[in-house]
Amino acid sequence: MSVLLAGTIAIDNILTPDGIHHEELLGGSATFAAIAASFSSPVQLVAVVGEDFPREHLDLFGRRRIDTRGLDIVPGGRTFRWTGEYHEDMNSRETLETHINVLENFHPTLVDEYRRSRIVVLANMAPTDQLKVLDQCHEPAFVVADSMDLWINIARDELEMLLRRLDLFVINDAEARQFMETSNLITAGHRLREHGPRNVVIKKGEHGALVFGEDRFFSAGAYPLHTVIDPTGAGDTFLGGIAGHLAANAADGIAFGDICRAVVHGTVLASFNCESFSADRLLELSDEEISERTEEFRRFTTL
Amino acid sequence: MSVLLAGTIAIDNILTPDGIHHEELLGGSATFAAIAASFSSPVQLVAVVGEDFPREHLDLFGRRRIDTRGLDIVPGGRTFRWTGEYHEDMNSRETLETHINVLENFHPTLVDEYRRSRIVVLANMAPTDQLKVLDQCHEPAFVVADSMDLWINIARDELEMLLRRLDLFVINDAEARQFMETSNLITAGHRLREHGPRNVVIKKGEHGALVFGEDRFFSAGAYPLHTVIDPTGAGDTFLGGIAGHLAANAADGIAFGDICRAVVHGTVLASFNCESFSADRLLELSDEEISERTEEFRRFTTL
Repeated sequence: MSVLLAGTIAIDNILTPDGIHHEELLGGSATFAAIAASFSSPVQLVAVVGEDFPREHLDLFGRRRIDTRGLDIVPGGRTFRWTGEYHEDMNSRETLETHINVLENFHPTLVDEYRRSRIVVLANMAPTDQLKVLDQCHEPAFVVADSMDLWINIARDELEMLLRRLDLFVINDAEARQFMETSNLITAGHRLREHGPRNVVIKKGEHGALVFGEDRFFSAGAYPLHTVIDPTGAGDTFLGGIAGHLAANAADGIAFGDICRAVVHGTVLASFNCESFSADRLLELSDEEISERTEEFRRFTTL
Repeated sequence: MSVLLAGTIAIDNILTPDGIHHEELLGGSATFAAIAASFSSPVQLVAVVGEDFPREHLDLFGRRRIDTRGLDIVPGGRTFRWTGEYHEDMNSRETLETHINVLENFHPTLVDEYRRSRIVVLANMAPTDQLKVLDQCHEPAFVVADSMDLWINIARDELEMLLRRLDLFVINDAEARQFMETSNLITAGHRLREHGPRNVVIKKGEHGALVFGEDRFFSAGAYPLHTVIDPTGAGDTFLGGIAGHLAANAADGIAFGDICRAVVHGTVLASFNCESFSADRLLELSDEEISERTEEFRRFTTL
């Protein structure tokens, strides 16, 4: 089963704590999520880039099961750019510059075939754009979305509208606390569900993830990483990994346990993503490596 | 099998974020750890209090399987006192006052019978005092200790001496990062083992705990608590719970898996401890409640 996946494609510039600038990296929420999902299922990509977007990146999507007929390449436009700086062994980061460029006038229009996708993934972007995509879908079976602090601050109403239409909302710990105005993540998870999503996943980075369903709860650990090279896109990889796994393994209806197993798969993929800049590690990753780490993860978390 | 348990007994004063002072509470590392361990095994308590220590607290130990022949009651002395303030929904705390009182001249002397204890628990106190207790023990099978930032700062040499004699060292996340000079907890856990302890547990509060053994690793979640009334003593409860469980369930030699199962038991007891001030919740806790929550915990963390 295919996954319809909408989000941003970016060119990232990253300044690491050693003072080195890593420039012109392929980034964006849809990029990481699409590559991650494509390990398990075909992906129909909905995103926008400018005419400056390197051909090699387009080819990279083409070599995977990522259908780019839904990728809008704006003539004369410039691709969305993000510059960020990481601090303290890559544990905290700060946005230095954002040039939204072609994202400003993004009007996602779905290829007809995409509209009947059963699984719809709305990776992090403006909630209005997420809603525009969702409005074009015909009765999807499962809708999952991510968001970020920026949208909680400047587009809360649209985000609330989106939440009411989700089967799964994925958000990080700091954002869940801020959004639900509590420092208690368990309370935050339950409150988020009251805003609409049938299930909520709170991402905790090095501490794993919490899954909240109807009268159900699951706590997943993180894969233990000694060295984090670049966590950019780990959350998007996690999201894409979840969606791809659900599409491949739960075609007949998605139960809470399916979401939990998908979260473990997303966790494993996200751990690989932290081992390189951009999506480099994901792009060279084999199915065997994923299976081995998944097995290792189970040993690390099972009594 | 009995557990020999040494640590502090305190009278705590706690200021909560609502501005309320909670005064004259029974506290101290040995108090919480002994009560927690006593659910699974008899405890031989080694600690010191002043003549001001309330009789009702002594009775409370007597009503459990806690042998207080090793409790030194200093004539004319005053019991150790700690005053702390909690901030932000009980997520961070600050020590306002410490009066070490009788702890200053604590010379733990073990009752003969205690010296042959197979399991020795050195709850948080000065590493010199932990060493004094350990020096009096005859070939214990398993030695577990806790510590805190204060001793890392002012008694590092003694703490290092202690570490070389431990089967299990338990420490919280912030302290592990500080001590091992890394923000990466996985690196911190492995480095701590290089300082001597055969096994290391890093406590992460609401995020659970990480267990490091020889070529083994285990990640345990936390029990999901909506409301934290008072987390004081949760770490000590966790420690005591681990030790009691090991004494009761792994008499024939303690393997890595035994430690992991004990960590789950400690996690469950610590979650109860957060539900009240002092050790009130632990003191009214039934074995049935522990079993139920342990079962719930397994459901929450098993796929």
